[in-house]
Amino acid sequence: MASYTIGVDFGTESGRALLVDTRDGREVASAVHPYGDGVIDQHLPGSDKPLPPDWALQNPFDYIDVLKHTIPAVLKQGGVSADEVKGIAIDFTACTMLPTKADGTPLCGLDEWRNHPHAWIKLWKHHAAQPEADQINETARQRGENWLQRYGGKISSEWFFSKALQILHEAPEVYQAADRLIEAADWVIWQLTGVEVRNACTAGYKAMVQDEGYPSREYFAALHPDFADVVDSKMQRTFGQLGQKAGGLTAQAAAWTGLREGTAVAVANVDAHVTYPAVKATRPGTMVIIMGTSSCHMLIGDKLQAVEGMCGVVRDGIIPGYYGYEAGQSGVGDIFAWFVNHAVPPEYHEAAKKAGLPIHSYLEQEAAKQKPGEHGLLALDWWNGNRSTLVDADLTGLLIGGTLGTRAPDIYRALIEATAFGTRVIIEAFEGRGVPVTEIIAAGGLPEKNALLKQIYADVTGRPFKLAGSPQAPALGSAMHAAVAAGIYPNIEAAAETMGKLKDEVVEPIAAHRPIYDQLYADYKMLYDTFGRGGNDVMKRLKALRRAARGE
Amino acid sequence: MASYTIGVDFGTESGRALLVDTRDGREVASAVHPYGDGVIDQHLPGSDKPLPPDWALQNPFDYIDVLKHTIPAVLKQGGVSADEVKGIAIDFTACTMLPTKADGTPLCGLDEWRNHPHAWIKLWKHHAAQPEADQINETARQRGENWLQRYGGKISSEWFFSKALQILHEAPEVYQAADRLIEAADWVIWQLTGVEVRNACTAGYKAMVQDEGYPSREYFAALHPDFADVVDSKMQRTFGQLGQKAGGLTAQAAAWTGLREGTAVAVANVDAHVTYPAVKATRPGTMVIIMGTSSCHMLIGDKLQAVEGMCGVVRDGIIPGYYGYEAGQSGVGDIFAWFVNHAVPPEYHEAAKKAGLPIHSYLEQEAAKQKPGEHGLLALDWWNGNRSTLVDADLTGLLIGGTLGTRAPDIYRALIEATAFGTRVIIEAFEGRGVPVTEIIAAGGLPEKNALLKQIYADVTGRPFKLAGSPQAPALGSAMHAAVAAGIYPNIEAAAETMGKLKDEVVEPIAAHRPIYDQLYADYKMLYDTFGRGGNDVMKRLKALRRAARGE
Repeated sequence: MASYTIGVDFGTESGRALLVDTRDGREVASAVHPYGDGVIDQHLPGSDKPLPPDWALQNPFDYIDVLKHTIPAVLKQGGVSADEVKGIAIDFTACTMLPTKADGTPLCGLDEWRNHPHAWIKLWKHHAAQPEADQINETARQRGENWLQRYGGKISSEWFFSKALQILHEAPEVYQAADRLIEAADWVIWQLTGVEVRNACTAGYKAMVQDEGYPSREYFAALHPDFADVVDSKMQRTFGQLGQKAGGLTAQAAAWTGLREGTAVAVANVDAHVTYPAVKATRPGTMVIIMGTSSCHMLIGDKLQAVEGMCGVVRDGIIPGYYGYEAGQSGVGDIFAWFVNHAVPPEYHEAAKKAGLPIHSYLEQEAAKQKPGEHGLLALDWWNGNRSTLVDADLTGLLIGGTLGTRAPDIYRALIEATAFGTRVIIEAFEGRGVPVTEIIAAGGLPEKNALLKQIYADVTGRPFKLAGSPQAPALGSAMHAAVAAGIYPNIEAAAETMGKLKDEVVEPIAAHRPIYDQLYADYKMLYDTFGRGGNDVMKRLKALRRAARGE
Repeated sequence: MASYTIGVDFGTESGRALLVDTRDGREVASAVHPYGDGVIDQHLPGSDKPLPPDWALQNPFDYIDVLKHTIPAVLKQGGVSADEVKGIAIDFTACTMLPTKADGTPLCGLDEWRNHPHAWIKLWKHHAAQPEADQINETARQRGENWLQRYGGKISSEWFFSKALQILHEAPEVYQAADRLIEAADWVIWQLTGVEVRNACTAGYKAMVQDEGYPSREYFAALHPDFADVVDSKMQRTFGQLGQKAGGLTAQAAAWTGLREGTAVAVANVDAHVTYPAVKATRPGTMVIIMGTSSCHMLIGDKLQAVEGMCGVVRDGIIPGYYGYEAGQSGVGDIFAWFVNHAVPPEYHEAAKKAGLPIHSYLEQEAAKQKPGEHGLLALDWWNGNRSTLVDADLTGLLIGGTLGTRAPDIYRALIEATAFGTRVIIEAFEGRGVPVTEIIAAGGLPEKNALLKQIYADVTGRPFKLAGSPQAPALGSAMHAAVAAGIYPNIEAAAETMGKLKDEVVEPIAAHRPIYDQLYADYKMLYDTFGRGGNDVMKRLKALRRAARGE
């Protein structure tokens, strides 16, 4: 008998629904809907007032629009009836959070708060809460907080309490007006089911929840007197586990989506984490790298280890029963997109058009004609700061080696290489602490589209690169969790066995490239340590001058 | 009675003739002619074979075309008869040199040699002779050659014997076939007068001629046995002084130009050096900065001092009777042009078009809206190597501080600032050795066109910036030397008094900008010393990898 589930993957620019046959993982239909307001980083919708630098917001109603557009679309496209859909699950960027009223109404949806930037969703790449992250870290160090080492010794400006504390610092009236501070992922589940349930994955990785729960009331009070009760007044202390059912679809959500009221809805998950089993990774030693605008590195292990600058280690955080390790690079596809949009001259755009290629593909084609080292460039991939291993949003991009002969494909290739070097730093940090990385599986849009990138990553890391079997692995992973929540499979391992997908293709390192990339990596590492570990603080001074000039 | 002279300024991309009234310096007419083959840095004309990187050649017949086009044009445009033109003088980029036969025929003009890159003119910015410069320096240090300190302790890859030795190393057959190795400036005078006369300025600054003449035969022999006789077999030991008459116009040259046969032709000069008196600078303490594709810093003094990494100090090299000091930045306008041509996205080109502005002006306008420090960027202006104070063509450009919010005007401004910081390093090097810089006068196309650049240079150096009175100062300076050669003025000081031009406008530093630029300069200097003085050799290693990848 036919049995389908739907996974919805909420990305940085758009949301995607995927309709999957639970019997074999076959992807029956898929639909994408871009967010109407996209990434809000210049000014609020309907306003001319510029946002400060490093801000990145979103509009929650864009997420509802994704549900309304994509789910009916996949049902229609797949010729599947609502009765045949047994469950739905979502995955999300994280930490992406918002203030709401007690009934879940986003503050930014109320006329009273609409014009206040702090009333909107803070997207994962909102980087303006660095002072709060600094305070959170310093206070935790002073108090000897145990949980700090679980996050590589540093909490990121991207995470939940950095963003929450920024609201309290800069807009106490918004903080007061918020009955709830909640992950956007959990907010969407709330909209679908009427049930407010916090998922254990974001709680663990982004809100410092460990075996002993949240940090203490005393710790929060030390950050700010009005922050002491943040958990009990604006959050929850119970969590939904990955693959659990959060509730059934409400009548209203059924109307939005065309699904049956009561359809099983799984607890929310994070896009990167849900991808892990989607590529059949269910054992210790397998590193899954999800590459998109940023990269997440997922790894599970039997034992608990402290690894420098990792994003977090959370029990049951990826696959129930294991310690789930996460590391990340805060700018990957974002850096390539920045380059293509803001630093590639008309000549290449015209040549790409003439060749009938997207500009990324044209630059890739030109860059692939080069040998390693030929462009003479080296970059630090910190255009969006550094997440692992340095956990520092104030670090910035560096390009060295420019000559009058430097051309766009040269820089494009150097930027790809820089992100590969950044991944190698992370792998070496894990292995240096005894957490082995025995195989690498890459997922996400970037490696799918860019053969040069795949080869460079294989060459730089010296490991064969396997590839996700589905270009929509996060949505597939969500559909798998929906199948577990609906009771079709007993656990995620079983779902992965049948529904997960890995390509046969393996990209092997090219032997002749390895020693050249070893040399380049040695210099990357030298620059990384020089500019990233306090030896040379010029990046910090430039950011300070920039803030002063902007009156921040 | 009417009395005119003509100055012809041979630049990197084109040549310009200026017809000047010797009675008051009035610029009567001017004409520009671009070089047909421009800068030859990809492949020889009529060939598809790529030139190696760092090569930059020119075609000598393009210079003759300049004479044929521009001189008749200014006569016609000015309504001046050939009888009224009393003299002609030229200035040139340097060291720009070529191999010729004994009668002056360029080797590249002969079918036998046309397809050989080494037979062509090596333009000043030909940077492929760095190994030869290294050898020249090392050998001079080992032998304790006295003249080395007169050139800041380092000979540049751009200079005469570096280029000559590269020909011998890489193309001994071309070296053998060359009866003459000669500055292009002196070759043009030879074509005009039939007289081979080497000018004292390039001989002193570019061919190591000091009071005791050229370096010794023994020194040249130590470089290469076949190089021992380079001076006596392929050059000359007597020199024409600045402002001297080289000879009279030949019948053929009179036919090319429309001038009278026998018209006085002055000894050649260098574009930067001839500009010094053209802006009325005739006293110690005045620094004249000629900004174009590169920058030259000219200064005269009563005493001889050794200054780190200056290009040279030559007695009578700028104004007869004084020590002439030269320093330089090997990439200035070239870097801005590189950026505009190769790193500015279509969006800004379209906006400039819409605004009816050249792209440079549009970027300047946008960049001028910022406060110092606001873009958060810092660059090392080494896209074309470093001439002073490091004298190292293997150094490369660096940009630090990039974020996803970085836009083209930010980088444009950071590049302008980087070149201003580079000038400040040079000023501090002179003053640190007791050679005062009491006033600064800027000349050349760049400061004329770019108000933001003028202000940034004033702010960064902390000195009021005066400006050349003529946008064609080198050509005016040549016309002044022509007037001296023709006997109209007894010396260049007298010619400068009447014919030289300085603007009334003075750009004053803005007090509020100074401390911010002092902070940025401190970091520029730190990066300059870190990457330029051997502490961090990553630029050298990247260049070595690049050469290896290209099989060089």
